[in-house]
Amino acid sequence: MSEKKSKKSSKKTSKKSKTEKTVKDNSLIYVDYVAKTKEEEQIFDLTIEDVAKDEGLYKEDTRYEPVLVAVGQNWLLGAIEEELVGMKVGENKTVEVPPEKGAGTRDPQKIKSIPLLKLKKQGVVNPMKGDRVKFGNEEGIVTLVTGRKARIDFNSPLAGKTLVFDVTVRDIVTKMKDKIVAVIKRRVPALPEDKYDVSIKAGTITIELPKESRYIEGIQYAEIGIAADALKVNEKADEVKFIITYERPEKPKEE
Amino acid sequence: MSEKKSKKSSKKTSKKSKTEKTVKDNSLIYVDYVAKTKEEEQIFDLTIEDVAKDEGLYKEDTRYEPVLVAVGQNWLLGAIEEELVGMKVGENKTVEVPPEKGAGTRDPQKIKSIPLLKLKKQGVVNPMKGDRVKFGNEEGIVTLVTGRKARIDFNSPLAGKTLVFDVTVRDIVTKMKDKIVAVIKRRVPALPEDKYDVSIKAGTITIELPKESRYIEGIQYAEIGIAADALKVNEKADEVKFIITYERPEKPKEE
Repeated sequence: MSEKKSKKSSKKTSKKSKTEKTVKDNSLIYVDYVAKTKEEEQIFDLTIEDVAKDEGLYKEDTRYEPVLVAVGQNWLLGAIEEELVGMKVGENKTVEVPPEKGAGTRDPQKIKSIPLLKLKKQGVVNPMKGDRVKFGNEEGIVTLVTGRKARIDFNSPLAGKTLVFDVTVRDIVTKMKDKIVAVIKRRVPALPEDKYDVSIKAGTITIELPKESRYIEGIQYAEIGIAADALKVNEKADEVKFIITYERPEKPKEE
Repeated sequence: MSEKKSKKSSKKTSKKSKTEKTVKDNSLIYVDYVAKTKEEEQIFDLTIEDVAKDEGLYKEDTRYEPVLVAVGQNWLLGAIEEELVGMKVGENKTVEVPPEKGAGTRDPQKIKSIPLLKLKKQGVVNPMKGDRVKFGNEEGIVTLVTGRKARIDFNSPLAGKTLVFDVTVRDIVTKMKDKIVAVIKRRVPALPEDKYDVSIKAGTITIELPKESRYIEGIQYAEIGIAADALKVNEKADEVKFIITYERPEKPKEE
């Protein structure tokens, strides 16, 4: 009995396809997390649908699924990625991120007093304390309204706050092809996985995209990102080739 | 002396690369033209820089060069393309196009009387006879202004007019590879010809585009157009493959 390999591994011979057991620097992993501010315990980001629903934070148009992280590439947040190293699949950890490693410290210069008239000209009419407003290219929160002026805080709402991430490692992607598929998925989540094809041979990663992909807004920039990511996760590759094939459309039948 | 072939033809052996001498249906050709209205003799389109300058019609941002026409595909105007069949390179012809084969006949329904107040709401302030104005999605010309209304003619300015094209055949593209290059050039004129590579083998047209092409606005739609055109001019091909390669960027030298 024990001589026969399981169905799954029988195809592969003895490549170094041993599943990685712990997260290392440069590992490509999937994580779930719930992120709060430490003080107010306010959730500002999360990946888990059930938690979103329980907390009354669920949004229809959001994808709740583990996110892909190339450890050490700042895809999540450097301070958290460091802490992931050494974790096992399924393991959970709570990581505190101080302001200077998170959204930065608060800058008093970014709190500005602006005449209501000037705000009105930019479409901010009758601002009230607590309103989130757009002024020029900046977004801020109204903290005080006097007779003729409003005080607006243009600091990021997370600035100066200690962040708490409750992180769970869901998977470590080990097969090279799966890694490439994962970076494609990250950039073009709308494109079903069975619509593209990835092959790796002698330093060249070849990605065949379907012609439907051409209708994805900004697909060419996604390609640039995929190429950069793919070369990061596959250090042995020298190049990434995209191939898109257009077949001759069938003639509409006459008669 | 006469035994030696000229430098140019010595490379090619005896393929059927006989240069086509006359334009046929489906020929891919370059033409120059000057297009006028018959009655007013007003030039409304032209491809020749010298003529543009002589006539005071020269525009900085316009490319003056022969245009590519796939005869019979309505790239120029069907009525003219028909007349090109049988012409030789260098030959010139004047073609009259009646309204119904040109910009259409004039539609009295498209002449509308619109209150000035309504025009104002759409940004048309103080219209004067002869002004070209935009109203909704339509463009028209003001033909009369009374106390409270303006009469605007939304017919195409060329509607109802007989057009006269003075056409010269500049070249007939015969080599298949040149044909593909020509259709690429037509869709992405900004991309220098030495930046891409075309090869044709066993029913597959392969076009390698440089990664810089990704920064061309709407390049993915240009690709769709190139693929369609390429399959039109090369009836033997079954598919068009685009390849874009991203090499690993060289590491910036440290130290």
